[in-house]
This record gives sequence, C-alpha cells and structure tokens, in this order.
Amino acid sequence: MADTAFFNSPNCLNLTEIEKLCEGYLKLNDNTDKDFIIEDLATIQEAKIKEACFLQNKKYLKYLEKCQASLVLIGEEISEKAPQHMNLLICKDPYRSWASLTQAYYPFEKREPSIHPSAIISSSANVDKTAFIGPHVVIEDDAIVGKNTEIHAGSYIGRSVKIGDNSVIYSNCSITHAYIGHMVVIHSGVRIGQDGFGFAMGAKGYKYVRQLGRVIIGNDVNIGANTTIDRGAGPDTIIEDGVRIDNLVQIGHNVKIGQASVFAGQSGVAGSSVIGKGVVVGGQSGISGHIHIEDRAIVMAKTGVDKDVKAGEILASGIPAAPVKEHWRRMAMLNKLNDIYKSLKK
Amino acid sequence: MADTAFFNSPNCLNLTEIEKLCEGYLKLNDNTDKDFIIEDLATIQEAKIKEACFLQNKKYLKYLEKCQASLVLIGEEISEKAPQHMNLLICKDPYRSWASLTQAYYPFEKREPSIHPSAIISSSANVDKTAFIGPHVVIEDDAIVGKNTEIHAGSYIGRSVKIGDNSVIYSNCSITHAYIGHMVVIHSGVRIGQDGFGFAMGAKGYKYVRQLGRVIIGNDVNIGANTTIDRGAGPDTIIEDGVRIDNLVQIGHNVKIGQASVFAGQSGVAGSSVIGKGVVVGGQSGISGHIHIEDRAIVMAKTGVDKDVKAGEILASGIPAAPVKEHWRRMAMLNKLNDIYKSLKK
Amino acid sequence: MADTAFFNSPNCLNLTEIEKLCEGYLKLNDNTDKDFIIEDLATIQEAKIKEACFLQNKKYLKYLEKCQASLVLIGEEISEKAPQHMNLLICKDPYRSWASLTQAYYPFEKREPSIHPSAIISSSANVDKTAFIGPHVVIEDDAIVGKNTEIHAGSYIGRSVKIGDNSVIYSNCSITHAYIGHMVVIHSGVRIGQDGFGFAMGAKGYKYVRQLGRVIIGNDVNIGANTTIDRGAGPDTIIEDGVRIDNLVQIGHNVKIGQASVFAGQSGVAGSSVIGKGVVVGGQSGISGHIHIEDRAIVMAKTGVDKDVKAGEILASGIPAAPVKEHWRRMAMLNKLNDIYKSLKK
Repeated sequence: MADTAFFNSPNCLNLTEIEKLCEGYLKLNDNTDKDFIIEDLATIQEAKIKEACFLQNKKYLKYLEKCQASLVLIGEEISEKAPQHMNLLICKDPYRSWASLTQAYYPFEKREPSIHPSAIISSSANVDKTAFIGPHVVIEDDAIVGKNTEIHAGSYIGRSVKIGDNSVIYSNCSITHAYIGHMVVIHSGVRIGQDGFGFAMGAKGYKYVRQLGRVIIGNDVNIGANTTIDRGAGPDTIIEDGVRIDNLVQIGHNVKIGQASVFAGQSGVAGSSVIGKGVVVGGQSGISGHIHIEDRAIVMAKTGVDKDVKAGEILASGIPAAPVKEHWRRMAMLNKLNDIYKSLKK
Repeated sequence: MADTAFFNSPNCLNLTEIEKLCEGYLKLNDNTDKDFIIEDLATIQEAKIKEACFLQNKKYLKYLEKCQASLVLIGEEISEKAPQHMNLLICKDPYRSWASLTQAYYPFEKREPSIHPSAIISSSANVDKTAFIGPHVVIEDDAIVGKNTEIHAGSYIGRSVKIGDNSVIYSNCSITHAYIGHMVVIHSGVRIGQDGFGFAMGAKGYKYVRQLGRVIIGNDVNIGANTTIDRGAGPDTIIEDGVRIDNLVQIGHNVKIGQASVFAGQSGVAGSSVIGKGVVVGGQSGISGHIHIEDRAIVMAKTGVDKDVKAGEILASGIPAAPVKEHWRRMAMLNKLNDIYKSLKK
Repeated sequence: MADTAFFNSPNCLNLTEIEKLCEGYLKLNDNTDKDFIIEDLATIQEAKIKEACFLQNKKYLKYLEKCQASLVLIGEEISEKAPQHMNLLICKDPYRSWASLTQAYYPFEKREPSIHPSAIISSSANVDKTAFIGPHVVIEDDAIVGKNTEIHAGSYIGRSVKIGDNSVIYSNCSITHAYIGHMVVIHSGVRIGQDGFGFAMGAKGYKYVRQLGRVIIGNDVNIGANTTIDRGAGPDTIIEDGVRIDNLVQIGHNVKIGQASVFAGQSGVAGSSVIGKGVVVGGQSGISGHIHIEDRAIVMAKTGVDKDVKAGEILASGIPAAPVKEHWRRMAMLNKLNDIYKSLKK
C-alpha cells in the first residue's frame, strides 16, 4: 500500500494479533488459520490477497462482492452481505479499528533528536535535548520546547512560546504569543498568535486596539495546513484538548473551542464566539462573532450561523446545487414570492 | 491583563490623564479622586478593582451590574444603566477611546535596528540603517526597506520591491513585484505579487497570459495572516491608504480597493473589480470579477456579489442557518414553488 | 506597460510578425505598413499610439471608440464596431492570441542555474546541475529536482519528493510525499503532501488513521499561493496534466482532478471525490466528499455540490446578493412558505 520511498515497510501481524488489536471477532472460512499473516493494508477497491481492507461507508458496499482481500474489517449489521468465503473481522466501529491497524502496521515516524546547525536558537530558550529542530528554524528568547517535540524546517517560534512534549510543528509555521500542549500536531504554514482584527473605526481612520491576549492550545490538538489562529484581544483564544482543525480555517480573536470539536476545511469563526465540546463544523461554514454554539451541535457544510445554537442541534443553510436553469427558475420564483403571498391574501 | 511573558508591563495613567487621552468626561463616585491610578485594562467580565474596562456591544450589558472595574468607558446613551457607585468615563465612541487607552498602556513593541547575520541581502538592496531584518530573511537586488521598518524571520522580499517607513512584515511572508507604503502591517504567511490567475483556454490546453503589473499598497494598510494578493495582469492591483484586510483573504489581479475599506476573514475579490472607499465586506463573502462596488457599500457575511453595487447599499444573500429539518422543509417547498405558482394561476 | 524594475524590456515585433504569431489576419488603415513596429502592450483603456491591446469581454466594448492603440486584437463578430481608421488583428480567440503576444514581448524570466550556499541539501538528493536553488531552501534525502527547475527561497522539499523539469516552486512552500511533473508552477506558500484530515471518532477521543498515500501531480499544472493539497489516505491524491488551481484552494485526501480542470480562488474539494476532465469550479465553491463530477461540468461560484454531477452540467446554488431589506423580505417569505402551501391545499 504505502510507497517505501516515503514510508517504512509495514510491521505485519497475523489474524490473532489483529483480532486482539482491533477489538473485533474473526469470522474465517475453513481454509484460513488464525496465524495467517496479513502482509499489508489497502482500500476495498484495491486490496489483493494477503491484504486487509475495511468497509464503513455504505457507498463502497458495491465493491464488497469482488473484493480480493484476505481480511475485511466490517460492521456486524452489513457483514451478512459479504460473500460466504470471505474472511471477516466483525468490528463495532470498523473505521476506528482500521485506525488502530494503520498505526500498528505503519507507526508514526519520529525524527532523531538533533538541532540543525542552521537553526537560530536564543540562549535563553529551553529546548529539551530529545527535541528535533530542523534547518533554518528560529526560536526566540525564553521559548520552551518539550520532550520529543519536532520543529521542522523554517518554522518561527516567538518569544516565550511554550510547546509541550511529543508535539510536531511542521515546516514554515509562525507561532507567537502561544502556549501549546502535548501531542499537538501543527501542519505546515499555520499562523498562530498574530494580532486579531481589532480596530476602532472613526472619522479620522481606523485606530488599532492592542491585542493583549494569547493563544492557549490544549493537548492532542491537530491543526491543518495554512490555518490561522489569532491571539485574544485581552482574553485568550482557547483551543481545548482533542480539537481537530482542518486546512485553511480561520479562528478569530477571543474564540473558545471546546474539547474534541471538529472544524472542516475553510470554515471560520469570527471573534469572541464560544464553541462547546464535541461540536462539528462542516467545510466552508462560517460562525459570526459573539455567539455561543453549545455542546455537540452540528453545523453542516457551507452554513452561515449568526445566532446562538442549542446543544445537539443540527444546522444547515444555503441551497443545494441545482442545474443552472432550475436554479434561475427557483430564484425567479423566490423573487415572486411576495406576489404569490399577496394574491393568496386576496 | 497582558501576560508579561509576551508584553511589557503597562504604563499606568491616572483618571485625569485617561479623561484627556480618551476625549471623554469622567463621572466619578464620591470616594474617587481624579489622581486615582488605573493599574491595568481588562474586559468587562474580568476587570477587577483598580482596572478599567469598556462597554460598547449591548450583548455585554448584562455584565455591567456586577462589574468590579474602577473605571468603565461607556457611551452616554447607556451610561444611566450603570450602578450609581460606578466610576464612568462617558465617551462618544467607547471602543475608539479604548483603542487609545490600550496603545497608551501597552505601546507597540519595536525591534531594535539590526540585521541578523543569517539574512541574505543583495549588495544592491537599500536597507535603512534603522531597520530590523530578522534571521533567514532574503532581500533581492534593488529592493528598498525604509526607516524603522521590521522584516521578521524567513520573509522573502523580491527584486525591486519597495517598503516604506515604520512598516512591519511578519515572519515567512513572500513579497514580489510590489510597492508598499508607510505604517503598513503585513502578518505572517502573506503572499503578495505572485502571478494572477491568467490564462487563455483553448483546444490545445491553457496558455499563460503574462502578468505584467504590480501590487501597489498605500500607507497604514493592515493585511492578515496567509492572505494572498496577486499582481496585476497589466494594470496594477491597488490597495489604497487605510485599508484593513483580515486573514485568508484572496485579492485577484487588477483589483482596486479604495481608501479605508475593510475585508473580513476568508472573503475574496475576483479579478479586475473596483471597490470604492469605506466599503465593508463581511467574512466569507465573494465579489465577482469586473464589477464595481461604490463607496461605503456594505456586503454582509457570506454574500456572493455578482453585479455592480451603488454607493451606501447594504447587501446580503444566502439563507441563515436553520435546524436541519426546518431547512429541508424549506428546500422542499422551494422546489415546489413552481407548482404553487401554477396552481395559483389556475 | 511593464515596470522595468520588475520585468525586462519588451522584445518588439512588427505587424507581420504579430499576424503570424497570433494566427489572425490584419485589417489595417491606409497609413499603416505591415512592418510597423508595435512597441508595447497595454489594456484597451490605457493603450497609446504604437501599442497593442485586445478586446474580448464585451463589458469593455465601451472603451473601443476612444482607444488610442495602434493595434487591437479583436474577434470577427465585434470587429465591425471598431472605428474605420483603427488597425485590427482579427483573431478567432483574441485572449488566446494576446496570451501568445505577452509571452513573445515578455518571455518568462529564468533564474541562472546555481545553488545558494545557505541551502541545505542532503547528499543523497539528486539536484540537476541546471537547477536554481535559492537561499535557505531545504532538500531532504533522496529527493530529485529536474532540469531547469527553480526552487525559490525558504521552500522545503521533503524526503524522496520528485520534481520534474522546467518547473518552478516559489518561495516558502512545503512539499512532502509527492511526485511532481514537468512545467509545473507552484506559487509561494503552497502546502503539498501533509496528512489528510483522517481520524476515527469514538468515546475515547479521536484516533488517527495513518495517511499512507501520496500526491501525484502531472505536467503543466499551476497551483496558486497558499493552496493546500493533502496526500492520500491510502490511494493517492491525483492532479492530472494541465490543471489550474487558484489561490487558497483546499484539496482533500484521495481527491482526483482530471486533465485541464480549473479551480478558482478559495474553492475546495472534500476527501475522495473524483473530478473529471475540463471541469470548471468557481470561486468559493465547495464539493462534498465521495462524489463524482463528470467531465466538463461547470460549478458556478459559491455553489455547494453534495451529489454526483453529470458530464457537461452547469450547476449553481445560493441566492444572489440583494439589498438587505429585500433579502430579509425574501427570507421572511421563505419562512412562510409552509403556510402558503397549506393555505393552497385547503
């Protein structure tokens, strides 16, 4: 599956080991022993003999019949659709079991502890001796870099920034005015801690409001490439433990994002909004400033949210795509709605 | 308020000094003298005794009653809602007065003039001796960097680029084909001056149209992190004085943005559109190419603008978020509009 | 037209040469010889005597009457609107002819082959001796850089990445886990090959699914500034020959984009979707995951696509901008649709 130019060779497991790791139970055909070794992982479309794959999204059920894999991770409820001869691992949550399997076969690569001679590190910075600091990294005064943390080429770590243990900052990031926890992954090009968009309008032009807060990021947070997170204006911008933020997302100043919330690509939150725990925000959605989205709410893709949202609510907006003529017809009708309404009132 | 790991200690002022600076008038309780010193600034929710805060957005009025601050900057019209004992500074525009106060307490930090030895600067570049040039900066032939201007780590300044006085280019930016004025702030990861999206389609594939213009940026402009501004195709891309552009904004080739206009996060303008003065464009809004938005128009968040807009008009589009079932009901109705209309015509 | 601070002086051509290059035919006034030299190129609004311009977009027809250019590239169907005395070059596709002309007058500048001494290049990397490697570039183990390819300041090329011939990687990019073809242009701040947004939810938090694919980019592809392209989860993310991607676009893991498709600024595609050949996606549009957009479909700006799209279909969604009062009226009516419908059913 994985190109060995980029990834190490897999650590292969036998079926017994996989069964244990994945917290499922095997349903094997008569010709297969539990010490059969699965040599690699692949998608349901591409898996060959001696490989394992998984099936979760029902869109892919059509590939099950002809699947060549020697093991399929599958949920109980759809397992009966599998051909009789197929070796199955029945899992509560096949995708989660698959996640475990990918990590077992292809453990995360770690960089060796080292500081590249081209890195510029302040003498007052405290970089743990187990850290990896890549070429052209800059670490300013009083910054702290924790154990086994990696900072890749060209990233800039500003004054007094703290980064915890086992975190990875990929290449060409800029981080200032921030405290970052453990096991945090920050992809390349991320900008954290810059001034929020704070200025007062007025007849004589705009006047900057000094942005005096910080960015506080918890543990096990993942931040996608080229995402931007402004520091607070006075309060802090806070990203709690376990949050997942995709690429090109904008997080405004003073925003608080609760534990394990998820922001998909190109979504954004304007200043001072409070997002609860376990909230899911779809791609290209936008959340206005100064509002509160309670725990476990779901904001579907491309939705604009401009009012508070109750816990667990599912929100959508916008009009789904339609053929352009149909779309224009709808829009014309929308413009006639007033007339329709008036004619009804007669 | 401000973490001294990141900010200097505040320059404290007494009430008389604050009254003068903020162009308001004090309304004090009997126990407070005008030489009482305000020791720090904070939000209305968090301010303690000896601290000042402000109140502008009425959403925060609910915090006024229990506010512990020794001074509240407040507008006249809502000042009567404050408890009798509270010390007030009545301001025409409390947020603007607050802006002045934040700058007085926490003046902008300046980097000391210096050129880091790891910076690569062409011998034909002209860098003022009062400038700060950070580590790993690259400045190409014939570029000019003005007085007290700062260029932070890893930024790239292309051939012949001019940057005026008292400007700041934060880390990891890329600037080519551009003339940039005084007191301009460019946040990290900004891309200025690259090719616009110019190519001619055709049966034999796309053919590049050479992009032969520049980016011209006036004075006192602020550009947010990871924003992109393409250079003109022949005419220039022009950003006039006082413009404020937030993070992750896209400005296409040949666009002209008039004085003091504001673009919120993730908004965009397609090629050759002309934006007047004092225009406000909300977050995630998009403006088509080749159109004209006149002075002081307001484009609300998430709006798609595809026609010219008159001066002062306020535009909106899209459907606000609704609970997903309600949303589907609306969409179903929208699809039935034609039927409704036809049944009416009978 | 072009500022000589940024561009070389033009290579001037006479009318005969231009006629041949542009595959059009001249229609000259009596005072103009075919060896008349056109000294520069300009827009129809700004062109002066001895300069050429073009007219394609009918919005600009109003400038034709007063145009001072000594040559106008124009389509046959609107050529009769030109004043009698005007020298015309009648072209099938004036913009495409103009593209040729801009490249002839202002050929693409190439950097001289060289490796800047501040670049950090692994001894196992294979950089062609005709390549340009700028300051502070990092090239990791086993990476390959082809003939005449340029990698500008501060870009990071990860382990085993291959870049073909005559390609340009502008400044401050990050590229890992990718194979990139010939004549590819990657603008500054682009992120290619980082982890896709892959994790399994669950009661104990999210669990990473290892992202084990690559990014495969064909020939003659153009990728805009600060765009992000995630590597595949197992399958690859594939960008075929001739694709044009604008600034700040997000391409999710496993996405396949067919030959010569175009993505305008701030558009995005979620994971595992398949985009056909010659598809055009407008600015700020979003395409959901796991769907198929067939060849030559057009997705208009700001559209959300959540279902498969047939070949050649033109899709739109959203509501065009309206003055805010009109917009609110529409929204109020939309909310009343159910009532209207019920009243009709009585």
